Amino acid sequence: MMREAAANMKNLDFNGRAKLVSCPHNADDRGILCAFNFDQLPFVPRRVFSVSQVPIGVVRGGHAHRSGEQLLGCLQGCIDVLMRFQGEEITVTLQSGPIGLLVGAGVWCEQKYITAGSVLLVLSSEPYDPASYIYTWT
Amino acid sequence: MMREAAANMKNLDFNGRAKLVSCPHNADDRGILCAFNFDQLPFVPRRVFSVSQVPIGVVRGGHAHRSGEQLLGCLQGCIDVLMRFQGEEITVTLQSGPIGLLVGAGVWCEQKYITAGSVLLVLSSEPYDPASYIYTWT
Repeated sequence: MMREAAANMKNLDFNGRAKLVSCPHNADDRGILCAFNFDQLPFVPRRVFSVSQVPIGVVRGGHAHRSGEQLLGCLQGCIDVLMRFQGEEITVTLQSGPIGLLVGAGVWCEQKYITAGSVLLVLSSEPYDPASYIYTWT
Repeated sequence: MMREAAANMKNLDFNGRAKLVSCPHNADDRGILCAFNFDQLPFVPRRVFSVSQVPIGVVRGGHAHRSGEQLLGCLQGCIDVLMRFQGEEITVTLQSGPIGLLVGAGVWCEQKYITAGSVLLVLSSEPYDPASYIYTWT
């Protein structure tokens, strides 16, 4: 998955505003522990939210933020993240694993839930603020 | 689930060291968004970790922490949390929903994963420190 996602992104990172990052990850026959240590992130999270129980094929998100950064991680299943920035677009597939997707301000994102039981975790540098959302993409 | 978990805990909160808290929660036919807004928590998280892909019936955890607080949330499925403190014990069942379990220092905890695909999220007030773990329960 790391290789696939990295290959998708190698030529397009929206001027550094989208980046794959690795997260400490401990997998054995008792399950997977995935750690998000704030002192290893490029921003200090002030909010975390999760999205779960999404029917297969449903698309959520569909906005950019005026400011701040977010780290997206797929805790279970498989989620396609479509990103758009200044006339270009790329889709990155996140799967349960040690790779998170760092997304900066102005990058429009939507997430398509590919498999049943997929769970998205988002760490955000900013508290919730409806005024931060940009829904249109031009 | 709220009522059940609350009923389990009403007579035993380990001197305030274990407490159910509600988390903002938005559920519709597109799935469930569960928010953990740091300014609404009794501590500032410095680390987040998730546990997923745990086989049914497996027990994880099995320790207390010397200091700090943790908020446990079940993002999907069903997880039994057994807590022990000063000679008493209680089990609280967490299910995907708006209720998190706040656990303080010294409370020994283990988690049993009841259904396939259960996902645990933990917000911790402290960075990872192996010296913080107390594995024995007396």
